[in-house]
Amino acid sequence: MPLVVAPPPDGPYVRIIPLGGCGEIGRNMTIIETRDDLVVVDCGLMFPDESMLGVDIVINDFTYLRERRDKFRALLVTHGHEDHIGGIPYLLREFDVPVAGTPLSLALIRAKARDHKFNDKAFVIVNPGERVRYGGIETEFVHINHSVAGACALAITTELGTLFHTGDFKFDQTPLDGKPADFAAIAGIGDEGVLCMLSDSTNAERSGHTPSERVVGEAFANIFAHAPGRIIVTSFASNVPRIQQIVDTALRFERRIALLGRSLMNVVQHATALGYLNLPPERVIRLEQLDAFPPSEIVVITTGSQGEPMSALSRLAVRDHPRMKIVAGDTVVISATPIPGNEKSVGKTINNLYRLGATVIHGTARGTAHVSGHASQEELLLMLNLVRPKYFVPIHGEYRMLVTHAGLAQKTGVAPENCFVIENGDVVEFTPAGAEKIGKTYAGNVMVDGSGVGDVGEAVLRDRKHLSADGIMLVVVTVDAEESRVVAGPDLISRGVFYLPEADQVTRDLERRVADILGGCSAEGIRDVNTVKEHIRQGLSKAVYERTRRRPIVVPVVMEV
Amino acid sequence: MPLVVAPPPDGPYVRIIPLGGCGEIGRNMTIIETRDDLVVVDCGLMFPDESMLGVDIVINDFTYLRERRDKFRALLVTHGHEDHIGGIPYLLREFDVPVAGTPLSLALIRAKARDHKFNDKAFVIVNPGERVRYGGIETEFVHINHSVAGACALAITTELGTLFHTGDFKFDQTPLDGKPADFAAIAGIGDEGVLCMLSDSTNAERSGHTPSERVVGEAFANIFAHAPGRIIVTSFASNVPRIQQIVDTALRFERRIALLGRSLMNVVQHATALGYLNLPPERVIRLEQLDAFPPSEIVVITTGSQGEPMSALSRLAVRDHPRMKIVAGDTVVISATPIPGNEKSVGKTINNLYRLGATVIHGTARGTAHVSGHASQEELLLMLNLVRPKYFVPIHGEYRMLVTHAGLAQKTGVAPENCFVIENGDVVEFTPAGAEKIGKTYAGNVMVDGSGVGDVGEAVLRDRKHLSADGIMLVVVTVDAEESRVVAGPDLISRGVFYLPEADQVTRDLERRVADILGGCSAEGIRDVNTVKEHIRQGLSKAVYERTRRRPIVVPVVMEV
Repeated sequence: MPLVVAPPPDGPYVRIIPLGGCGEIGRNMTIIETRDDLVVVDCGLMFPDESMLGVDIVINDFTYLRERRDKFRALLVTHGHEDHIGGIPYLLREFDVPVAGTPLSLALIRAKARDHKFNDKAFVIVNPGERVRYGGIETEFVHINHSVAGACALAITTELGTLFHTGDFKFDQTPLDGKPADFAAIAGIGDEGVLCMLSDSTNAERSGHTPSERVVGEAFANIFAHAPGRIIVTSFASNVPRIQQIVDTALRFERRIALLGRSLMNVVQHATALGYLNLPPERVIRLEQLDAFPPSEIVVITTGSQGEPMSALSRLAVRDHPRMKIVAGDTVVISATPIPGNEKSVGKTINNLYRLGATVIHGTARGTAHVSGHASQEELLLMLNLVRPKYFVPIHGEYRMLVTHAGLAQKTGVAPENCFVIENGDVVEFTPAGAEKIGKTYAGNVMVDGSGVGDVGEAVLRDRKHLSADGIMLVVVTVDAEESRVVAGPDLISRGVFYLPEADQVTRDLERRVADILGGCSAEGIRDVNTVKEHIRQGLSKAVYERTRRRPIVVPVVMEV
Repeated sequence: MPLVVAPPPDGPYVRIIPLGGCGEIGRNMTIIETRDDLVVVDCGLMFPDESMLGVDIVINDFTYLRERRDKFRALLVTHGHEDHIGGIPYLLREFDVPVAGTPLSLALIRAKARDHKFNDKAFVIVNPGERVRYGGIETEFVHINHSVAGACALAITTELGTLFHTGDFKFDQTPLDGKPADFAAIAGIGDEGVLCMLSDSTNAERSGHTPSERVVGEAFANIFAHAPGRIIVTSFASNVPRIQQIVDTALRFERRIALLGRSLMNVVQHATALGYLNLPPERVIRLEQLDAFPPSEIVVITTGSQGEPMSALSRLAVRDHPRMKIVAGDTVVISATPIPGNEKSVGKTINNLYRLGATVIHGTARGTAHVSGHASQEELLLMLNLVRPKYFVPIHGEYRMLVTHAGLAQKTGVAPENCFVIENGDVVEFTPAGAEKIGKTYAGNVMVDGSGVGDVGEAVLRDRKHLSADGIMLVVVTVDAEESRVVAGPDLISRGVFYLPEADQVTRDLERRVADILGGCSAEGIRDVNTVKEHIRQGLSKAVYERTRRRPIVVPVVMEV
């Protein structure tokens, strides 16, 4: 690990360090550090990829923060999505810092992490347009549009100038709540001069403009007008504007609303309490009441838009939900696109729903039943032109998206040498003399498995990978150490290699092979247990490979009595 | 397994049984059976999904054929893609039947399965427009367009009427070779009357028309005109028309051509020999000569369009290819779309290529650099109107595609009750009285792992899954059976659970726990080894879960001396 170089000996400086979210989608977290103060923007989680076997979630490496504990002043939260808040419980275990965010963001942090205990005094409510100051760093929260309510960009002002962090955003000119992004504030901040902008790159490869959330309502109206029976709609639980549209369309078509899925109930409860969601209680029915109304008067809103195996929709699709059954005539609307990697599980859910006789509306078959929450190229260009930063750091995206976004910045006049395409752990340092990428710090994956944080590393994953592909074969033998004589075994035990009853001929053959190896060792006068084990390992591996072309992990156990 | 019912006592009948490819994408294989004869159309493989840990490929269950070995007359091959030919080596191990197909299809079967020995006399060359007769079943091969040359539909005539099997197809009105589908033949067959059509459902959900292969050439010209340095293009090795377009564009822009990847070399060799591909040898250079020409005069055609970890392109992307390096200025063109499930690995390859300074063209950024080989809705409707079948069986697709395709058939006038949406193993039987789904036969996954065919089943996969998520923990103890006394151990060995050096405190704690359990057994007078093992298993599982919230497989081994 190349270590980051020391700060300049004197004068002000600002460092930007993404710990997560640069060069990947997920676990967004950015450090902003000056000589005396340090704040962190967001602290998200990432879901494990297919190589991280058995891992529950992935969070960031907090080493850099641990080494600067004394000046770590606050965590600033842009919005309440898991890839921005999911790591917070782990951060707060170690650091006693305030968490500043909008009311819904803070409510979602609490709702997502009910198993964790929080110090309630740590939560600092900031409404859009308000400012907070931590040490020498002042931050203004600026209203923008995104697929969750209460999302903000942050104007973070340091001694050296202002850093503008867009958070996740889009420019919705016709948002449901009538509140487009706070153009006046953004333009004003730009007018005062912005040292560096950090901007959302998720859709940097997408040309044009992301459609307004409002167009989804038109698709819903079209779908609701034609669905003969019950309608089941799934989306991300945190997408409060989307839930509002489903509710509004249900009211318009005089359907009653049932809710399915724990995370959805949670979000609905908080969003309603905070005034982000308007759901008339008299139109809500319990799942138990579904049969009391005609199918054409029912809408069920559910979780499971990503085909997650334990989600309500996936369980409905395999008739494994205790409280509801899909029947012929149901219309299921998937108001979301699969996150890369989830395409197959979503496809499987759709097929299973069809098998039960449901009609499934997904993709753009009946209009736009889903829009992205992230800005496309025209909006990214608009943001660049509003803010007119001197330096530019694309964040929140895979490497190719960051490169493309940097290209857009250059088209708006940012000097190519002022665009920093950086990845997790890279350190960009600003001084009065300019800006430079000065090094790299710890920013690896910290894997959470069960109650363990970080105790599953590469070696354990290698073993799990090997075990998953070819299984494990153990051979146990007890020897009399003094007489160098086998007194029990060899016994062969396998898991995941092949179907192998103990009485099987293969087992007997392989046990005989091990006995031969032991005999050979004995004849050659080999006494050292580790050498004997190595002979068994090699001999048995070879024998298994010859028979099956498989390479299980072979573990020899020699017990001495 | 519900068994298929007996055939009717007298009179002619025809059965259609898809063993694979119905309700899934892959391992296409359909049985056509009459009272005296049986032919099989295609015999493909499927790549394992993420639940089939360690499995190499998946083939079909041949049980139904084994039980009717005497009347199994021939295998008819529509085209040379792996999902249609990959299972043939396994079929030919068991059945000595002729394999009839076009020259390139047969060449690809041989090329793909070089490790297998074939009886060359089994291969029967059939050119489009020709017929073959096996027993009472006569089959005409009909030229259609697809993303591999030499693809055919099959008109299979039985005593009861003609079955029209489309194979994989599209209608390309401007194909590169100037040979659109044989409309006259198809319309003629339709005119004579078709009992049942089986048709490709891959793109049944896609509206409109699949673009002509020719539009890809326009995108290539656009890309070649602007690329400053070397161009690296990847596509499916078997897509000979695509390779031809890359070659043609290279010639037009005066670039030399290098080939990378074993399967590509194979296909190019066979396709050139058979006249499907025109590649002037004087324009081909070896990889070793790359540095002898200016970058702007080079095109490299390579495998790896799906991000397969061991493919040439993936290795180039991580600078792990021994014979070529990607450098800044290179333009990589991905002329393919990811097969569902491969999105993440393709994305990873693209990001890595960007990290090396290459520009990557994928998707539709610079025009249509890839078109599908499968018919969209308008083409499917055209095929239905040309053939005008009495009965319709959608094949080659996931369930939702089959349902959608059946809906299209009904729009052209096929009676709803004459559309059979069936899945693998379903048996549809035609008699002079009509058609009926009469039962189901064996059609499960046969998993090939190493040299073993079918010896990896659900139990082994369950173990591998469990091992992959939480690892395995073994505890070995040697006891003196007569004195019921521990003489060695307990020793704890783990793989894939957590990082656990042997001297670790956790290990010692857990070993002590096992010793306590053994003490408890002894005190209670428990002598039975299996009971002792069960006590160890439960006690140790509990102890590990309490500490880590993980549930490894726990294997107690008690050696008696």
